[in-house]
Amino acid sequence: LSTELPVEKQLRADARRNRARVLEAADAVFAAEGARAGIEEIAERAGVGVGTVCRNFPTKEDLIAEVLAARCEELLGEMREAAADPDAGAAFVRFMTTMADFSGRYKALAEELAARGELPVRPGLKEQLHEATDRMVRRAQEAKALRTDVTTADLKLVISGIAQATVIPGVDASRQRFLRIVLDGLRPESAADHP
Amino acid sequence: LSTELPVEKQLRADARRNRARVLEAADAVFAAEGARAGIEEIAERAGVGVGTVCRNFPTKEDLIAEVLAARCEELLGEMREAAADPDAGAAFVRFMTTMADFSGRYKALAEELAARGELPVRPGLKEQLHEATDRMVRRAQEAKALRTDVTTADLKLVISGIAQATVIPGVDASRQRFLRIVLDGLRPESAADHP
Repeated sequence: LSTELPVEKQLRADARRNRARVLEAADAVFAAEGARAGIEEIAERAGVGVGTVCRNFPTKEDLIAEVLAARCEELLGEMREAAADPDAGAAFVRFMTTMADFSGRYKALAEELAARGELPVRPGLKEQLHEATDRMVRRAQEAKALRTDVTTADLKLVISGIAQATVIPGVDASRQRFLRIVLDGLRPESAADHP
Repeated sequence: LSTELPVEKQLRADARRNRARVLEAADAVFAAEGARAGIEEIAERAGVGVGTVCRNFPTKEDLIAEVLAARCEELLGEMREAAADPDAGAAFVRFMTTMADFSGRYKALAEELAARGELPVRPGLKEQLHEATDRMVRRAQEAKALRTDVTTADLKLVISGIAQATVIPGVDASRQRFLRIVLDGLRPESAADHP
């Protein structure tokens, strides 16, 4: 039995709505402008004051982490879907395409990757993404859809390279071309020392 | 017949030496720390005052441009050497390796590439590098050492991606691994739609 007054309930609902609005605005602004984007712009887009942003997310890093965490949960879902594909080769191509698009589109993510070499998300999520990637890689290698001299670390670097080279506005089509070269180079029969 | 006093000659020689020292220090500091490196650090390394740096190079951009121009002349020389290799395939691999190493090592260059999509060097040099690259690409394609659905723009993006992903300290070995995947993907027989 709740003892709270209707006005308190209303205030809590408003606070939740504001927080959701800030996150939505931050997602759009960071995707378009990268981690350099200002809190003022995010507040304006969300239709709230700068104070509301700061109450919910004391630092810009907190806000970036929350936005990326939400996107990474989505990414994890997509990876699980790809893993369910009976064709391991197709699943791998889908995984690489999703990762490159995701990283390229999220300038903030690419910048964080470049600056720290790791994502500012909740620890559990990072491990889950890492495990899902490892499983994907092993499965593709067992199915002879991916050369065996390539590691998960190599693939992360490749995705980071594609993302960083194609965050420049107007090079979206180039990302697909870059990815195609890489995917062709990753097939076992493409290795230079292939018997 | 020179009418200048020995002391004037001496002053000019000192000025030249200081300029050369600043350039050498800037080259080392930019390579290690990127374009973010401070003028103070460069002055200290060169053993001159900050004023001497500023008299020779009014802005940091001037200094970056001069350092990169010198490195690019060197690069052009290496490209011409590679072009003289009778094996067009080997020449292409050498070109890509040189470019990736050069771009990866020169963080400042990679950052400039990422930020502006172009080099802050003298116009003539840019065109010469571009022409040399184009010739290298055409020659490799004619020799069937490079797939024909790849453009010079694609290769520039690929090199930029490799460079940006591998400017993180400690990933020098990874650059070679990334490059190998890309080089394997660039051979005509690796194209997914190869007959």
